[in-house]
Amino acid sequence: MLPPMPLPPPQDIRALAFDIFGTVVDWYGSIVAEVARTGLPTDGAKFALDWRGGYQPAMQEVRSGALPWTNIDGLHRRILDRILAARGITLPEVEAAALNRVWHRLDPWPDSAAGLARLKKRFVLATLSNGNVSLLVDLARHGGLPFDCVLSAELFGHYKPDPEVYLGAARLLDLAPGQVMMVAAHPSDLRAAAKCGLRTAYVPRPLEKGPGGLLEPSAPGEFDFTAADFGDLARQLVG
Amino acid sequence: MLPPMPLPPPQDIRALAFDIFGTVVDWYGSIVAEVARTGLPTDGAKFALDWRGGYQPAMQEVRSGALPWTNIDGLHRRILDRILAARGITLPEVEAAALNRVWHRLDPWPDSAAGLARLKKRFVLATLSNGNVSLLVDLARHGGLPFDCVLSAELFGHYKPDPEVYLGAARLLDLAPGQVMMVAAHPSDLRAAAKCGLRTAYVPRPLEKGPGGLLEPSAPGEFDFTAADFGDLARQLVG
Repeated sequence: MLPPMPLPPPQDIRALAFDIFGTVVDWYGSIVAEVARTGLPTDGAKFALDWRGGYQPAMQEVRSGALPWTNIDGLHRRILDRILAARGITLPEVEAAALNRVWHRLDPWPDSAAGLARLKKRFVLATLSNGNVSLLVDLARHGGLPFDCVLSAELFGHYKPDPEVYLGAARLLDLAPGQVMMVAAHPSDLRAAAKCGLRTAYVPRPLEKGPGGLLEPSAPGEFDFTAADFGDLARQLVG
Repeated sequence: MLPPMPLPPPQDIRALAFDIFGTVVDWYGSIVAEVARTGLPTDGAKFALDWRGGYQPAMQEVRSGALPWTNIDGLHRRILDRILAARGITLPEVEAAALNRVWHRLDPWPDSAAGLARLKKRFVLATLSNGNVSLLVDLARHGGLPFDCVLSAELFGHYKPDPEVYLGAARLLDLAPGQVMMVAAHPSDLRAAAKCGLRTAYVPRPLEKGPGGLLEPSAPGEFDFTAADFGDLARQLVG
């Protein structure tokens, strides 16, 4: 953790680091659509929420040392096996493996690709996700997302919100933490980034958990920027 | 090192990993132009060759443990200070630092950007360079090079031709080594990749070291593919 220091002015921001699941891509809608497409005999909305719901506890098992380092593909598969078993569904291995890969082909939010293209004119754009590198590469290709660089928890052997991830990203980009702005739909991610000295941009995604889902609470003015979507963020940062 | 195993057929190649200095970008021509532009009082051609000539010995110092891990920006700067001193040239720190950054704005060969765009339709495209991540990000932005992913020796704490780099790239891409093809202008790089089980594509760049420069020797048929430039490589691999 860095000692408190004055942040550089926003015009010194050189790179934007993006959370991916929920911020850039719509995991909920994509998984609901996959369940419908494959005819899996379960409620798609509940299935998507249960799968994603296993994610924080699984990372905590890695963080605590109960599980050795396991990438997100591996964690997603562990959770998938559990939620299928809980429903009494047995899939052939090849189908379970294919279903687990749905996380590699999540659709972006409608504003993501165009907003990133505008932001790229002024800033270096990096992913900064707990997703593994190959998953992030596949998501970027699937969605036409013009990132300059794929940065992942996998490169640091730590999951967000561990500080190693935020500080590691600044180090690889050869920037001071205050020259990097984290962009995320999750206040908890942004608060952890801010503690490491990064700037913060909050882009709430009210539909992340489907209709009626709740946003994490946050205070007005808590973050350096708040934007309705990536087009609005580009308007504020690039003009 | 993997035990010998049958290579998958070329149609199983999923990703191309590109050497950068000399293969994708023209360091010689870019440095000669920089010397001319800045009016540095020295012969640009000799200066470029001396700067690049210090690169292998400097990496060997890291490999042997004589130097702690130092990224390429740091190694370039050490060499720069030495070749300036040898010429009796003293630069203000800000000018020396700016000159060292020329490696972040090397121009691509004329066929690089268009060839990569064609190859990207079929393959995941990664850098696999001894250059550090921020340098590679800057080169890709400068040259409009559409890589999907920036992989660098810096991520592995080893410089090519150490096997950790080639095997680390396959691991991060979640591919078997034989599903990754190294693309390089340097037979030594390709031979090291092949020893790790990667496929190989040789793209000789006869002007890498300027007019009259010599290519490293290689045997006909030594590599899986040989191409005159990236357009020719795309013709062979994508059609």
